[in-house]
Amino acid sequence: MASRARHWEYELEAEFGHRDITDDVKQLVADSGIRTGTVSLGMVGSTGGITTIEYESGALQDLHRAVEMLAPAGEAYAHNARWGDGNGFSHIRSALLKTGLSIPVVDGQLQLGTWQQVTVLNFDNRSRRRKVVGVVTGE
Amino acid sequence: MASRARHWEYELEAEFGHRDITDDVKQLVADSGIRTGTVSLGMVGSTGGITTIEYESGALQDLHRAVEMLAPAGEAYAHNARWGDGNGFSHIRSALLKTGLSIPVVDGQLQLGTWQQVTVLNFDNRSRRRKVVGVVTGE
Amino acid sequence: MASRARHWEYELEAEFGHRDITDDVKQLVADSGIRTGTVSLGMVGSTGGITTIEYESGALQDLHRAVEMLAPAGEAYAHNARWGDGNGFSHIRSALLKTGLSIPVVDGQLQLGTWQQVTVLNFDNRSRRRKVVGVVTGE
Repeated sequence: MASRARHWEYELEAEFGHRDITDDVKQLVADSGIRTGTVSLGMVGSTGGITTIEYESGALQDLHRAVEMLAPAGEAYAHNARWGDGNGFSHIRSALLKTGLSIPVVDGQLQLGTWQQVTVLNFDNRSRRRKVVGVVTGE
Repeated sequence: MASRARHWEYELEAEFGHRDITDDVKQLVADSGIRTGTVSLGMVGSTGGITTIEYESGALQDLHRAVEMLAPAGEAYAHNARWGDGNGFSHIRSALLKTGLSIPVVDGQLQLGTWQQVTVLNFDNRSRRRKVVGVVTGE
Repeated sequence: MASRARHWEYELEAEFGHRDITDDVKQLVADSGIRTGTVSLGMVGSTGGITTIEYESGALQDLHRAVEMLAPAGEAYAHNARWGDGNGFSHIRSALLKTGLSIPVVDGQLQLGTWQQVTVLNFDNRSRRRKVVGVVTGE
């Protein structure tokens, strides 16, 4: 049994900055030597998210619209009224989508489909350098 | 410490095909001999989802309505405009609900409530044979 | 490699009872002695949820509004029509937000931001004593 950790930093645009990090996660799994286990990913902070999606501009545009429906950027938020930082919508998008994800590893391979990419999202109202942590555990 | 993997394939109907896979996951945990650990589950692909719900027809019907509200099947999607495959709504439902889930294992038992079932969902616009992977890690 | 489990019980109010459990999870990680690994958390039952959010009254009020939009407490639900227990909205909020979460552990530290708290939620239509299970796995 073993475990291996790594972190990455990504520059992401405001509101719906996105990046496909699948290759980075695959590299972590390969370097770990772990054949059977799990990768646990977490974006540090309360205004981001991680999910999987077919990483192409159409689906990303559709997802942007969906999170805008869930927590519109232009609406009034109690968080903004209290703190004045204007990113109330970012916190709600993040709490609903969550900042973490775990993916099974079998035969040393991340168990994802061909059209399924690990995608990190920055929901904050300014561009951010976001830290993402990955840990593989298994044997 | 040990880890054990298994996969299953399930025939699921289009748009909101569902199945209770709790017994399969329990069997994997029992066969692993692991007493304290975690099960990580993932549906392979970008148009499905996994969650827990009380698996009865009323709650399932209500969940179907909720995902239809989140990403209506009949709406226009940028993904469809680009690729013409008509499953833009499926990708959005999947990205919001996510294809993965992890569940703690204590005393060799999956930590779920009596009315809480592990449920796999197919959101694609056609029926699919979906692959689900489970890995238990622990000791 | 090692793994360590613990559970907690929290009295939470109806509909959107919430509690910051970050310190409890940190204590579990500290007591486990695990330096590199993952914490898997699960709330037992089908009417609760776990996520991370900046735990302050404004953001919590905004999240309450968002889950009320996703599954309004006053709407008609097929689950209620069948079982008469009036908590159809609770099941849908729980299935969408999910009852589980996993968080990476690096250098013995839970990988969360300063303004990011592990928050448990009770969506049921009555106050509940909710059981939350945590397992750390790693080395």
